[in-house]
Amino acid sequence: MELEKEIKLIAEKARQAKYSLRRANSEQKNQVLEKIAQLLLERQEAILSANQKDLEQGKERGLSSALLDRLRLTPERISSMAEGVKELVKLEDPVGKITSIWKRPNGLLVGRMRIPLGVIFMIYEARPNVTIESASLCLKSGNAIILRGGSEAFNSNLALGEIITDALSQLGLDPASVQVVPTTDRKAVDILLRMEDYIDLVIPRGGEQLIRKVVEQSRIPVLKHYKGVCHIFVDREADLNKAREICYNAKVQRPSVCNAMETLLVDEEVAEKFLPEMAKKLESAGVEIRGCEKTCQLIPQAKPAMEQDWYEEYLDLILAVRVVKGIEEAIEHIQKYGSDHTEAIITENYSRAMEFIQRVDSSSVMVNASTRFSDGFQYGLGAEIGISTTRLHAYGPMGLEELTVCKFIVLGDGQIREK
Amino acid sequence: MELEKEIKLIAEKARQAKYSLRRANSEQKNQVLEKIAQLLLERQEAILSANQKDLEQGKERGLSSALLDRLRLTPERISSMAEGVKELVKLEDPVGKITSIWKRPNGLLVGRMRIPLGVIFMIYEARPNVTIESASLCLKSGNAIILRGGSEAFNSNLALGEIITDALSQLGLDPASVQVVPTTDRKAVDILLRMEDYIDLVIPRGGEQLIRKVVEQSRIPVLKHYKGVCHIFVDREADLNKAREICYNAKVQRPSVCNAMETLLVDEEVAEKFLPEMAKKLESAGVEIRGCEKTCQLIPQAKPAMEQDWYEEYLDLILAVRVVKGIEEAIEHIQKYGSDHTEAIITENYSRAMEFIQRVDSSSVMVNASTRFSDGFQYGLGAEIGISTTRLHAYGPMGLEELTVCKFIVLGDGQIREK
Repeated sequence: MELEKEIKLIAEKARQAKYSLRRANSEQKNQVLEKIAQLLLERQEAILSANQKDLEQGKERGLSSALLDRLRLTPERISSMAEGVKELVKLEDPVGKITSIWKRPNGLLVGRMRIPLGVIFMIYEARPNVTIESASLCLKSGNAIILRGGSEAFNSNLALGEIITDALSQLGLDPASVQVVPTTDRKAVDILLRMEDYIDLVIPRGGEQLIRKVVEQSRIPVLKHYKGVCHIFVDREADLNKAREICYNAKVQRPSVCNAMETLLVDEEVAEKFLPEMAKKLESAGVEIRGCEKTCQLIPQAKPAMEQDWYEEYLDLILAVRVVKGIEEAIEHIQKYGSDHTEAIITENYSRAMEFIQRVDSSSVMVNASTRFSDGFQYGLGAEIGISTTRLHAYGPMGLEELTVCKFIVLGDGQIREK
Repeated sequence: MELEKEIKLIAEKARQAKYSLRRANSEQKNQVLEKIAQLLLERQEAILSANQKDLEQGKERGLSSALLDRLRLTPERISSMAEGVKELVKLEDPVGKITSIWKRPNGLLVGRMRIPLGVIFMIYEARPNVTIESASLCLKSGNAIILRGGSEAFNSNLALGEIITDALSQLGLDPASVQVVPTTDRKAVDILLRMEDYIDLVIPRGGEQLIRKVVEQSRIPVLKHYKGVCHIFVDREADLNKAREICYNAKVQRPSVCNAMETLLVDEEVAEKFLPEMAKKLESAGVEIRGCEKTCQLIPQAKPAMEQDWYEEYLDLILAVRVVKGIEEAIEHIQKYGSDHTEAIITENYSRAMEFIQRVDSSSVMVNASTRFSDGFQYGLGAEIGISTTRLHAYGPMGLEELTVCKFIVLGDGQIREK
């Protein structure tokens, strides 16, 4: 009951901040961002010592070294956070922009104006830099945010949260615009997910299990992606050199992320010419291949793929490979097994490139490019708070604009409605 | 278990239709709309006789005459449905439109392309014309739709659904693009609301209770508005004649709809000059006034308003009236009691008009116009499937464009990612 009260107070303060933030203009918001960058550098030691606590507790709790590395802050990582915040200052503030306005026969001017989404509740896992990134993006776009990081990063997140709150206070903005949930009690999340009257949007970032749990419980709209099972389809008219470079890049350059290729589809007409050499290149980087029957005939070292492999997000140096009859079967495969994240076709054929672009409705669809480009920074959005594979509001990488919605504005001079 | 199977089949067929509909171009979709309009007129008798069954059962079940009237179809209402469908033909098809495209330093072209939302599940109450309107809007925007109307209109909806299915079949499109749930069993809704792998969006239209129940149960994103507690604020520099015309129109012209005014806020500086005459005008139309203390002093016939009145959507000839100290108190009132639907300021003062437009973040914000204009047709969207007060995806009246989302398209010539 105590917790319930405490959490409700956080939600109420966030709702109040949502209104007060609407009075801050772009300049004021940018000043806060500059101040956050400054304080991050000035208070480096306090951040590092809070982080040290988390690291020690993490070791005691037996966290893997990969996880400890994600958790670890260093002077370099802190400077890079500060740089990221400063970059945001340069971006255009979307709030208040009138995206279109038109005149009705009765003289009414009707338009759409961008406004913040309101109060965002962000749930995420180990990396503490997400605290700074998400808070800065929300501030710039006028949203109040409630942050709930992983319990492993609890002390680091509190220290970072304090910096943001201080920056807000020093510049006269509502410090409740950014709140870090001050407890690791999991019940706090359950309570917040029911507060639909206070919170406008939930963004969970983390493993599929975490996200499914949030969707299950939440009465508030959730923007999320469960996983990225990205496909590349090598068409019969692909430039096979381009295809090999792109596939290698998409699988090997950073296999642990959601926009890495997980399944390679190859048109049967070029499979023989393409696959053995591709396999050699991939194997030189340590990639294990799990193939369909035809693939296994062409690549003796390949293991046979099970049905489950086509659904798998390996996030590792493993690749599922399937030979298909052509673009139709490739699209059917993507529709059945895909995750709506990112798919690419490699082809020199104009009509099939257009067909792929038009019929595949994943959040990113590419021609002759690596799936690794599916990213807010790479697309030139300037920032990214996450990737959505929910076909609502935002689909694909989400930047500042995706943290806003348009309201209608109507400018009249006394019009009334006749019927 | 039988029902579960039957419903799952509907969802699977809808998901299949979502893909097959993507192959239909605008011309084919328009031909289906023309055919629906034609069949509506040709099969008028079948529709009327199905509707007759519903009306008889409704009378037996003791439906109110207002409800029976909403349920009733006539030759005129059927022609007007057909006209509505034909109007849609003229509107631009949003699907496939590239809304913006830009070039990255590495030569990649990155753009956004409009695509359908996918499978929409629509839940609504008595009026059978919603069946035709929603189905046509979804078809035009390339969405598959599952329709679940009120049980009172079951036979009418089945007859209308059959027309749509026939039109689709006759023109070679997937008849499962539009499916009417063939049972009045309420469990069917519960089952569908859990099918997040098949359905992309739920749109409930009806009373607040119905909508709250849907939000409670659904694991699928829901676009909705609970209620419309629309406010008009009469500023101290309002043109009081305009103000009286607009307020009268907003309250009296059609009190039973969500964009009618429910609360009138008046700046204390003009209350004495404005309210007594306004009250006379409203009372001549039979409006009951529930006022704050000051209002009751100025309007002797007014009843005192309770706290609950400020939250109320009367949908009737009742108006809550409050005298406020100025724009600040008006905005605070709207933030506390409002429903994010539609609010208007009446003023000749430029700065306060701009302040109201910028600080009030309801889905429609107006200056010197009647709240009754808050409507997709009045805004020139050409059609409306509903109004959203969820600050996500669509906020305000939803037309064809709001039934789409943008995916990213990336056109490359072999780019790979370096880091």
